[in-house]
Amino acid sequence: MKKSLGATIHAMPSPVWVVGSYGNKGEPNMMTVAWVGICCSSPPCIAVSLQKSRLTYANILEHKAFTISIPSKQYAMEADYIGIVSGKNTDKFSVTGLTPVKSNIVDAPYVKEFPIVIECTLLNTVDIGLHTQFIGEIVDVKADEEVLGEKGVPAIDKVDPIICSASDRTYYALGEYLGQAYALGLKLSEEKIS
Amino acid sequence: MKKSLGATIHAMPSPVWVVGSYGNKGEPNMMTVAWVGICCSSPPCIAVSLQKSRLTYANILEHKAFTISIPSKQYAMEADYIGIVSGKNTDKFSVTGLTPVKSNIVDAPYVKEFPIVIECTLLNTVDIGLHTQFIGEIVDVKADEEVLGEKGVPAIDKVDPIICSASDRTYYALGEYLGQAYALGLKLSEEKIS
Repeated sequence: MKKSLGATIHAMPSPVWVVGSYGNKGEPNMMTVAWVGICCSSPPCIAVSLQKSRLTYANILEHKAFTISIPSKQYAMEADYIGIVSGKNTDKFSVTGLTPVKSNIVDAPYVKEFPIVIECTLLNTVDIGLHTQFIGEIVDVKADEEVLGEKGVPAIDKVDPIICSASDRTYYALGEYLGQAYALGLKLSEEKIS
Repeated sequence: MKKSLGATIHAMPSPVWVVGSYGNKGEPNMMTVAWVGICCSSPPCIAVSLQKSRLTYANILEHKAFTISIPSKQYAMEADYIGIVSGKNTDKFSVTGLTPVKSNIVDAPYVKEFPIVIECTLLNTVDIGLHTQFIGEIVDVKADEEVLGEKGVPAIDKVDPIICSASDRTYYALGEYLGQAYALGLKLSEEKIS
């Protein structure tokens, strides 16, 4: 018997991503977000939901671009801080000691210390309610060599990203390997056939 | 020095959610999705991206509703299977042994064995490219008592959801606790002040 919890947000897990953008004087800003996700394969796109009151909201509309930098778990404290304070009155790069790098392909900065960087141009905005979705078309991904696994693609256990729960507001690290996508489930077909 | 990987999808982590929908004869179907995310706080909404060719795409448009059931890690094999085969020619509930339950609030079925269920009405669709986003307004969440933690909300370590990497196509379990959101980062402010 399941218990009803009402019209609330308990979807999990959520990613912990840091959005990079430039202000109206070219000052770099970053903001941690969790209301995000991949939303299209072709063109490759990700969606980031932001409230109108956020500096990042205005920045992206002005520059039509943003980046996503994915922090490893050792930056959990910094990532949380970047989601708490506003760039309107704080230079978050200065406080955290993280380094803004100007993207060579979009008009936005990324975080040097984070192992994966996704560079996006603004494709569309979708007003939903308190949040507006910014749909970014991925124009390049840059990764530290150290996190590349077989076939030259980033391996999640090397990236070691932060996992968030919007329900109990917690951060966790990655745990045990469970299997390969598009492969693990085939065992079920085999079991059924045999 | 970061290495450029091109306009590809290496965003991580992704959730592993199972979308429940009814077909045109009322037959329950389920499909595993990872191109998803929370997209608004008020009204509470989640976004699920689907290709037009999917049975779930037609089902949701017809019934204007869907559910999200969140599997625990012991169902990783079933979740992967549910993402590989199509409900057009397979009764995935029958093959997996999972149980469809008719929602009491939306016109869609959910998976009894999975600890969290999110019931949505279709608020909007957004065509992006190969994928269309289905924005669902959350009208209720139902959870097994066993996964509720302090304050009566689902605790992610009790839910023990599956974590997916679109980059290296792997599934992982949840690992070590890193800290509390909106709290861990305050240490950085304190360190800076002291």
